[in-house]
Amino acid sequence: MSLPSISIPQARRIAVDVTGAQIVQEESPATRDSRGIYLPHYIEAVSHIAIDIGGSLAKVIYFTRSSHPVPTTPPRSDPSSPFLAPAQTLSSPPAASSSTLPHAPDSLASSSSSGEFHPPTPRPVVNGALTPGILSHARASRSGSPARPKKRGGVGGHHRFRRTSLPDPLPGGLVNFARFETERVDDLIEFLQDLIAESAKANRVSLDQMKSMVKVMATGGGAHKFYDRLTSELGVEVRREEEMECLILGLGFVALIPEEVFWFSEELVYKVSHPEVPITIPAAELPRPSPTPPMYQVSFAPAGDDTPVFPCLLVNIGSGVSIVKVDEDGSYERVSGTSLGGGTLWGLLSLLTDAATFDEMLLLSEQGDNSAVDMLVGDIYGQDANKIGLKSSTIASTFGKVFKHGEGGQRRKKAFKQEDIAKSLLYAISNNIGHVAYMNAAKYGLDRVFFSGCFIRGHAATISTLSYAIRFWSKGTMRACFLRHEGFLGAMGAWIKNVEDGDEAAAGINGVAAAAVAEALQLDDALEEVSKLSIS
Amino acid sequence: MSLPSISIPQARRIAVDVTGAQIVQEESPATRDSRGIYLPHYIEAVSHIAIDIGGSLAKVIYFTRSSHPVPTTPPRSDPSSPFLAPAQTLSSPPAASSSTLPHAPDSLASSSSSGEFHPPTPRPVVNGALTPGILSHARASRSGSPARPKKRGGVGGHHRFRRTSLPDPLPGGLVNFARFETERVDDLIEFLQDLIAESAKANRVSLDQMKSMVKVMATGGGAHKFYDRLTSELGVEVRREEEMECLILGLGFVALIPEEVFWFSEELVYKVSHPEVPITIPAAELPRPSPTPPMYQVSFAPAGDDTPVFPCLLVNIGSGVSIVKVDEDGSYERVSGTSLGGGTLWGLLSLLTDAATFDEMLLLSEQGDNSAVDMLVGDIYGQDANKIGLKSSTIASTFGKVFKHGEGGQRRKKAFKQEDIAKSLLYAISNNIGHVAYMNAAKYGLDRVFFSGCFIRGHAATISTLSYAIRFWSKGTMRACFLRHEGFLGAMGAWIKNVEDGDEAAAGINGVAAAAVAEALQLDDALEEVSKLSIS
Repeated sequence: MSLPSISIPQARRIAVDVTGAQIVQEESPATRDSRGIYLPHYIEAVSHIAIDIGGSLAKVIYFTRSSHPVPTTPPRSDPSSPFLAPAQTLSSPPAASSSTLPHAPDSLASSSSSGEFHPPTPRPVVNGALTPGILSHARASRSGSPARPKKRGGVGGHHRFRRTSLPDPLPGGLVNFARFETERVDDLIEFLQDLIAESAKANRVSLDQMKSMVKVMATGGGAHKFYDRLTSELGVEVRREEEMECLILGLGFVALIPEEVFWFSEELVYKVSHPEVPITIPAAELPRPSPTPPMYQVSFAPAGDDTPVFPCLLVNIGSGVSIVKVDEDGSYERVSGTSLGGGTLWGLLSLLTDAATFDEMLLLSEQGDNSAVDMLVGDIYGQDANKIGLKSSTIASTFGKVFKHGEGGQRRKKAFKQEDIAKSLLYAISNNIGHVAYMNAAKYGLDRVFFSGCFIRGHAATISTLSYAIRFWSKGTMRACFLRHEGFLGAMGAWIKNVEDGDEAAAGINGVAAAAVAEALQLDDALEEVSKLSIS
Repeated sequence: MSLPSISIPQARRIAVDVTGAQIVQEESPATRDSRGIYLPHYIEAVSHIAIDIGGSLAKVIYFTRSSHPVPTTPPRSDPSSPFLAPAQTLSSPPAASSSTLPHAPDSLASSSSSGEFHPPTPRPVVNGALTPGILSHARASRSGSPARPKKRGGVGGHHRFRRTSLPDPLPGGLVNFARFETERVDDLIEFLQDLIAESAKANRVSLDQMKSMVKVMATGGGAHKFYDRLTSELGVEVRREEEMECLILGLGFVALIPEEVFWFSEELVYKVSHPEVPITIPAAELPRPSPTPPMYQVSFAPAGDDTPVFPCLLVNIGSGVSIVKVDEDGSYERVSGTSLGGGTLWGLLSLLTDAATFDEMLLLSEQGDNSAVDMLVGDIYGQDANKIGLKSSTIASTFGKVFKHGEGGQRRKKAFKQEDIAKSLLYAISNNIGHVAYMNAAKYGLDRVFFSGCFIRGHAATISTLSYAIRFWSKGTMRACFLRHEGFLGAMGAWIKNVEDGDEAAAGINGVAAAAVAEALQLDDALEEVSKLSIS
């Protein structure tokens, strides 16, 4: 979406303590897209809201201090269906050692927070209140942490971990997530107004006072398009942040959260794409592009994965697709992209099916058979395909069976099932993105590809297709990685970049990315490096 | 479509004399796709028909001896419209020095040979008769040619140019082209039956005799799928040839034909994509990804281009897309492909528009404005896009404007014009193919990309989009090349591979590709090489 740009962040300061962070178990499928992140050790006041306004969706992040411990509902798993239930939507956090793929059976029937249901669209409820720094009771900071190596405490005047001296009533805080359709920007503004008003009440200050203390950090194209409206209607300072920088910062930060990053095992990819095959997969039937496939985990990647998040390729799939190369030090460049993204699938399926929402489209796709509309190699070569070394089930031409001689659009359309159309197009768009992503990863010698953006929506078939594309083209040498807060990287980056006030803000941010690497590696030397940088 | 395969052809023998070859001026737009190639110096009898049966279209090539000189109708040009007329279909051959882009104004109204009109579909008329070698009056062969360097005559017992000793009545021959829809394979078979019957009559032999002398060389998936039907219903020998090999052989041969290969100049690409801009283009408005763009010709590349056709990347766009890397020696490998090809566009537009044929779809696209359905960078960023260094007209998301909250498919569909939908999807599919092609060309260090296949259909917007994509992504370092017989490479390869009878056939073929390189280069050394090989 934006032109290639290069930025070399400099590691300076670590701003947010993610020790013991947990992704909040959603209480209903309605909050699937907006699972909070509970940070038990981070209770510093944060006086800003981050928003990322894309072409189709606006994403919001804000931090509230909380006296509620994180819910401890165990993940819902169904032992009789170890892979996927009919609604293939990942909605619960994976258990660390679970081999199951949790799901929310009724995610479509009751979804509300996504703002995509109609009519009327329930707005997300404001959850907690902002606590601007100036209102914070205590700003004493301690250095070090009992849970950390001592060395980390020695960072001169700059403290890695900031704690208030307040006791138990506020044992941590919650990073909150919300999502709106961009064309309903009114809802977004009203939500932000409510949040600010609630925060004024909670902190017992006047609305004007609260407004003078709150900032909105805005990224994405809408930060520019709606800048004037945001500024005038919210009455607070709005600061604009560059989109790609925020994506990378957001990735670096969110990857620190346990159980955030996951990938699909080879077996799982196979299972999702062959729902009719019994659970026990004959080894011979597993498509193995490489004779020695990498040892993928059978379930989601658990917490504790030691691989640093950078270097990698980041493929952000929103309305369009941005492909960003990220080097080991967090510097980045937007190297490619494609206009065939989420907006394309939504748009096509909104014309070709009766589905009113993207979730309904995904549900349709799960019930479809793409071979009714796609031209397979077997359709072209006939029975001989396998004999001459071709795989007859390979899709030769997406939608290649649809063109029928001389029939008008309406009559022709009725001859094809919406489910089959949805499955074909979801597969085609996902596979094309996976293909272009692979080409770029290969070009830059990267072996991990992170897929983000609201297109993915935790949808198993999408994840499976992207995973398979990466493995197929790379002959098993690359891994496709996913994130549970896939759609919020930009907002997350805008938030983390500005976690500290004033001039320090711009400096503080990028250290997070570097710290992410260091932390994951548990390299004291790397931390030492960061510490040194933070002094300079 | 097929799995990667490698073949190293060996240069042996040169079978067809293309000296003075001319592409026949079509007499009506109906024959746009099937322009014959007149070979004044090649009158050897050819007893085989070549067919290439793809997923959507079946292509036919056969050679007839002719007493008719090539028509000399000058290309129709309209000085008031030096670039493109409303129906942007290239239908006439370019004049060697012309700066105009000829067109067939009524190509849609009267097209017949394509077999895509309905109902009823006129079948191509059999043009001339086959003359099996056994019936040829004279088989004396002479070596050398007055128009050629003497050296070429010295190829031992293997003669580069074969001539019958017959005089004027048969001064040459015509390579004929025809096309059918694969789902109407009955029409193809009937056409071939007619051709064989006509040839029997013309040669005054019985049908059974003729059948015993005629062979069908079949490639493409349908060669396998319909093998039994072809064999039993035609009553002739059917030989199957590998698809990719035929493509490459066909490219090597057809590129020898003067005025066959062409490309779009930078100015022409601009003009096609900005029909509203006056003919005089301000230099500042030309998109120049490179500060020193290559010196593209303003019109089609004329005859006499000395660049050898290999090495190159061949991107064959049929129902699906095959991407083939071709080395300097004509060896090749299918390195990539995508299922988003011609079948995808046909299929989508057959559901989303009332167009009954692909040509009608292309015509629709010429009248459309894709910004009505595509989400542009300017739509996301607003007025500020250009200020912050983004190009507001860049397409961020194909179809990104179509998704509208909560409306059912039918109502929503009516809100968008078919023309806009057609333009958006034609652009998206073409651009995606261009992008993937560029990535592969870059990967293998190739600077020329040949686009072939029936998807292109000489359509200016398609050619322009593919050209722009290659130039944009390569920063002007690569060139997109096109062919006037774009859809017939496979059939051409199957034909040329079998121009000589019996066991010599398999050997004779590949020499053509090598000869193509040598001839284009006019390197006597290369020819010497070929000569040596042909002796061994």
